[in-house]
Amino acid sequence: MTEFGLIDFAARLFADVDRHGWEAIGDDCTVLDIGGGEVVALTTDMLVEGVHFLRGATPARELGRKALAVNLSDVAAMGLRPVATLLSVALPYGAEQEWAREFIEGYSELSHREGVALVGGDTTSSKEGIAVNVVAIGRGAAAHVKRRSAACAGDAVFVAGELGGSALGLDDILAGRYDTPYAALHRNPEAQTAEGAWLGGRSEVHAMMDLSDGLASDLVHILRASSCGAVIDVENIPAAGGNVRAAVCGGEDYKLLLTASAEGAEELQRDFHETFGRELYRVGRIVASEPRIQWRERGVDIDPDWHGFVHF
Amino acid sequence: MTEFGLIDFAARLFADVDRHGWEAIGDDCTVLDIGGGEVVALTTDMLVEGVHFLRGATPARELGRKALAVNLSDVAAMGLRPVATLLSVALPYGAEQEWAREFIEGYSELSHREGVALVGGDTTSSKEGIAVNVVAIGRGAAAHVKRRSAACAGDAVFVAGELGGSALGLDDILAGRYDTPYAALHRNPEAQTAEGAWLGGRSEVHAMMDLSDGLASDLVHILRASSCGAVIDVENIPAAGGNVRAAVCGGEDYKLLLTASAEGAEELQRDFHETFGRELYRVGRIVASEPRIQWRERGVDIDPDWHGFVHF
Repeated sequence: MTEFGLIDFAARLFADVDRHGWEAIGDDCTVLDIGGGEVVALTTDMLVEGVHFLRGATPARELGRKALAVNLSDVAAMGLRPVATLLSVALPYGAEQEWAREFIEGYSELSHREGVALVGGDTTSSKEGIAVNVVAIGRGAAAHVKRRSAACAGDAVFVAGELGGSALGLDDILAGRYDTPYAALHRNPEAQTAEGAWLGGRSEVHAMMDLSDGLASDLVHILRASSCGAVIDVENIPAAGGNVRAAVCGGEDYKLLLTASAEGAEELQRDFHETFGRELYRVGRIVASEPRIQWRERGVDIDPDWHGFVHF
Repeated sequence: MTEFGLIDFAARLFADVDRHGWEAIGDDCTVLDIGGGEVVALTTDMLVEGVHFLRGATPARELGRKALAVNLSDVAAMGLRPVATLLSVALPYGAEQEWAREFIEGYSELSHREGVALVGGDTTSSKEGIAVNVVAIGRGAAAHVKRRSAACAGDAVFVAGELGGSALGLDDILAGRYDTPYAALHRNPEAQTAEGAWLGGRSEVHAMMDLSDGLASDLVHILRASSCGAVIDVENIPAAGGNVRAAVCGGEDYKLLLTASAEGAEELQRDFHETFGRELYRVGRIVASEPRIQWRERGVDIDPDWHGFVHF
């Protein structure tokens, strides 16, 4: 059973349970309307030693920042601002002293920078590896929430930064080059929290999510949730180092992927650039079709073997 | 660094961060006032293979129920009703198929019985052991929230069920007796969700928490948070099998521990019995003293070597 198989299985088992106002599984966060035009949103991610990081290769402080960043990115992807987190840590005997202190210092460092509180958690021992679970809590206007299911035929498709840098960085690290600019991107991913909250406030933005598994995989989640297709112009993808395969298939970029009404697209790009001094890249458009991506290169349909990162 | 050392360290690092309305670490849940006289509460717990369970000895279905129950118990301890959960699971390659299916079926079984939805989560692979993290979400009236810090000198101290059964059950299991009544208690702990929500509605109840580490350890959390002491009459402790040491030092009972005004104590006991058909046990009283427990046996102070379960 793959990650999505397991989630689907659970979703079916729980289909008949009252959700008490919480939204069902299927977006970057689950959202609760708390009245007064406001929502609270929750997301969670688990990181496991030997799978998501190697204790020898990943400094604890860096992992503390990264564990937080990937969760903040999920809140940003909803168009909301992260306000607080819960942190669970399982540590093998012996590792706890120095490692835990540095991990929490890194976590606290990024929390301070993002203005995010720590309001709960759990610590326990483990028999062997380290495991970390983070829950991020977002809050904001109900009208700002962006869901995967909101893409419309005709929308322009955007990505909010260069893609593939993290994958190239992982290649560098595996080749023993720890200090390249791409390795730094992989080791210290930045969540687009300011961009997410800003895009949440723009009504021309329809669907949004963050790119954790690569455009080829993540965009399909929006297409399936919205029952539409996409045409992506490969030459417009902002590919790190010109490596389109890494940009499309590489994981852990944590850049925002969004669709917006075609009429508002140019103004959105202009305002984004004025606000953040960086480009919002227009890479294609949503079409009425099966939920699949049609890749196109200078106006010609192509059929490359591109897939995103698959878990398990 | 012990569990509490690590939490204290984190709490100090985060002391200067705005909590955006969420309460600080220190209770069974963190609570957010969402307006309209209502609160949302969150708690999280991590279970790790080889520490909290053995894959060979614990059926996955049972573990699914238990992982949920311990979190529901934390919501009940706040006087609130659990409404939804998030579930993260890390699974070694190979274990995922059958194990994951049965785990989620057990989790779903108890969720259905308690009317609790599954609204989010994460699944990932692990290198070796299984790790599970559950987040439970509670909701209820702000006026019903019971905190550890609310005990007052003069309060009566109650426990909402027999204690020590889980510890005796663990002894049975370790001796190879899997099917005793105590072993069943250990394997399938029940969260006192109905009792917790009911006690939340009683204004004579002051402080409340759930007993996960044993009375000798957990009561001290209430005493420290409330800056008071307690006198406990040992002969009044409802000890499973008459084993007072197991009742006082054993973990994982998940019965509610609470204090209530002395004037309201008898009516509370009577109403509890009428509602649930079971006894609310009065075991002692809160006194103005250092935050420590004075054990007393038939009116005579005693000084036994009783400690609760210590993590790490």
